[in-house]
Amino acid sequence: MTMEAFGEEEFGERRSWEVPPPVTEPGWLSEEELAATRGRVPILYVEAVPVRVDHLGCVTQVGLLLRGSASTGRLTRSLVSGRVLHGERIRDALLRHLEKDLGPVALPILPATVVPAAVTEYFPFPGVSFHDPRQHAVALAYVVPVTGECQPRQDALELTWLEPHEAVAPDVLGEMEGGRGSLLRHLLRQAGAVD
Amino acid sequence: MTMEAFGEEEFGERRSWEVPPPVTEPGWLSEEELAATRGRVPILYVEAVPVRVDHLGCVTQVGLLLRGSASTGRLTRSLVSGRVLHGERIRDALLRHLEKDLGPVALPILPATVVPAAVTEYFPFPGVSFHDPRQHAVALAYVVPVTGECQPRQDALELTWLEPHEAVAPDVLGEMEGGRGSLLRHLLRQAGAVD
Amino acid sequence: MTMEAFGEEEFGERRSWEVPPPVTEPGWLSEEELAATRGRVPILYVEAVPVRVDHLGCVTQVGLLLRGSASTGRLTRSLVSGRVLHGERIRDALLRHLEKDLGPVALPILPATVVPAAVTEYFPFPGVSFHDPRQHAVALAYVVPVTGECQPRQDALELTWLEPHEAVAPDVLGEMEGGRGSLLRHLLRQAGAVD
Amino acid sequence: MTMEAFGEEEFGERRSWEVPPPVTEPGWLSEEELAATRGRVPILYVEAVPVRVDHLGCVTQVGLLLRGSASTGRLTRSLVSGRVLHGERIRDALLRHLEKDLGPVALPILPATVVPAAVTEYFPFPGVSFHDPRQHAVALAYVVPVTGECQPRQDALELTWLEPHEAVAPDVLGEMEGGRGSLLRHLLRQAGAVD
Repeated sequence: MTMEAFGEEEFGERRSWEVPPPVTEPGWLSEEELAATRGRVPILYVEAVPVRVDHLGCVTQVGLLLRGSASTGRLTRSLVSGRVLHGERIRDALLRHLEKDLGPVALPILPATVVPAAVTEYFPFPGVSFHDPRQHAVALAYVVPVTGECQPRQDALELTWLEPHEAVAPDVLGEMEGGRGSLLRHLLRQAGAVD
Repeated sequence: MTMEAFGEEEFGERRSWEVPPPVTEPGWLSEEELAATRGRVPILYVEAVPVRVDHLGCVTQVGLLLRGSASTGRLTRSLVSGRVLHGERIRDALLRHLEKDLGPVALPILPATVVPAAVTEYFPFPGVSFHDPRQHAVALAYVVPVTGECQPRQDALELTWLEPHEAVAPDVLGEMEGGRGSLLRHLLRQAGAVD
Repeated sequence: MTMEAFGEEEFGERRSWEVPPPVTEPGWLSEEELAATRGRVPILYVEAVPVRVDHLGCVTQVGLLLRGSASTGRLTRSLVSGRVLHGERIRDALLRHLEKDLGPVALPILPATVVPAAVTEYFPFPGVSFHDPRQHAVALAYVVPVTGECQPRQDALELTWLEPHEAVAPDVLGEMEGGRGSLLRHLLRQAGAVD
Repeated sequence: MTMEAFGEEEFGERRSWEVPPPVTEPGWLSEEELAATRGRVPILYVEAVPVRVDHLGCVTQVGLLLRGSASTGRLTRSLVSGRVLHGERIRDALLRHLEKDLGPVALPILPATVVPAAVTEYFPFPGVSFHDPRQHAVALAYVVPVTGECQPRQDALELTWLEPHEAVAPDVLGEMEGGRGSLLRHLLRQAGAVD
């Protein structure tokens, strides 16, 4: 029985509750539990596009990850993305996934409010704009300026910085799974980074 | 074994998928399944404040429901609120809960985008701003103008229209559970309806 | 000396101030005064895209005006658009221009908040994304559902309802002046009406 | 004849146009010109609340300026605030006023989009929520994280960092002119910094 890919101690140190939740409610699930749960309710995700901005707040670079697809195993471009755990705040989940993918000194400037820039609904059915074969996922997406150094922490993972117009080139967007190319373009348009 | 309070046929007719999801993935859960799921992942909700607006778009009236608390059974003021089911779109969930609570001819004007006016995180732990003893719930909240007649469809339910300043009076907000008084005030402030 | 194209009595009846502003501060200007002012400060505009929405809030039709260009005289597709007058509230300006262009029974649902869906900066210089040869204009833009009948009130004006994908066809967007095609596409994307 | 309080060379170096606007359209006005203009059209402003945020994006400190009132001369708490000049982009105006009030090494993180957190309409009439005796001003307001050192650049000016709950204390809000106390509270509420 395999656990999801993050340890309890790492999870613990990120939590900043004044009153900690009881230890009997861990946020991680066994694969069996996660599979059963995925068939029952929409699963809440956070997604983030790390960007570098200039002194005027304009997006100058967009960070895209290269990693193995969770469904096909093929290398694909992807956003920072991951589940919100039971008992975990959205801000904590967002920071946890940013640190997991960009390393501990990326120094992201998290948004002042958790109202997202986009809400994306991924369905396991065919014929939808946003698709996730594993589950019905609802993802809250954010554009997050990073001010430090990014060091992807997992071997299979590489971070590429592209200029905004490069990031929305058809061949780059086409490499992204489940409609995330369309999401990325939407987020960069919203941020005024591309037309 | 009791099912949640909405039937399959009602659910079916609201869905507007071009390609319908497979019948083997029903959105409703038995009480046992729901209880198990609630201990494993955050549960996605939609919440709505029905309002009447004047010709300038200013909120003139705020609709509050009176209903039995899901946790204590006491009558409390509440918002339109409910789960997003597996396979259900946020828009469909929002409309379904609005129709359940306001009747079929309320004629709500749903928001053009599902990016919510507020994201509220309810935790089952003590010491948090927003509390739900049953679960960790994440609610996407919307202010929804209604243009038709509202007829609450369940006996124990009454809809009261209050002026915005009445809706944020301390005794009204104090009747709301889990911090929803604070959420209501936030939403009405955002809509420019109260100071 | 020609006045701008709206009469004082019409303007007066739209204003809903509890304490009316003094009559010595009229919002309208002579052409000379307007020309001088346009060279001194950015001029505040409101712009609106009238849409029809279905019961789920999805945009089904987009209303585009056909009218003579203020700068070239040629017929062009345009948005509802106009100045905010001195002493006039944004909501009042928005409603005034909607009524001027769509008639008195369009029954628009104005937004709950005047925070716009987009802020567009038009400059009189060449080489900018958004261009207005007359002035530096800053426009607050809104997507406005209309629920009644639209009857454009000026002879040279026609209102065409297009499906969202038709409204963003290159030949339609190309007919719009000053970059407004790009603005229209941005607003419809934000509303989830087009990809 | 006195000019407004910023020099042409300073203005010039902040502008980042690829194609510079013609030198015959200066953004600054004589006092006479500004006074005449203020009686004719709404004047566009930007306002900003500088904040410090923690690693989760939560606001930990709010920067308030202490300066002489433009209308009464009395010392009052105020936000970063100023006009958008003719030919100036909103981003440039925002950065210019932030640098004027916070110094050159405040390192503000400007918002990715110029869609503001709030739009405030100040009128010169009595009996309004937001009041400016000099003019009808429309202000686009932003909450701006600063990551560097703040050194107010004008002698009469002091910057005080307060915790969010201190910043919304009645005596602090009461010191702010024209309804800006109410605006500050709204912005901090929106940012989730206060309840």
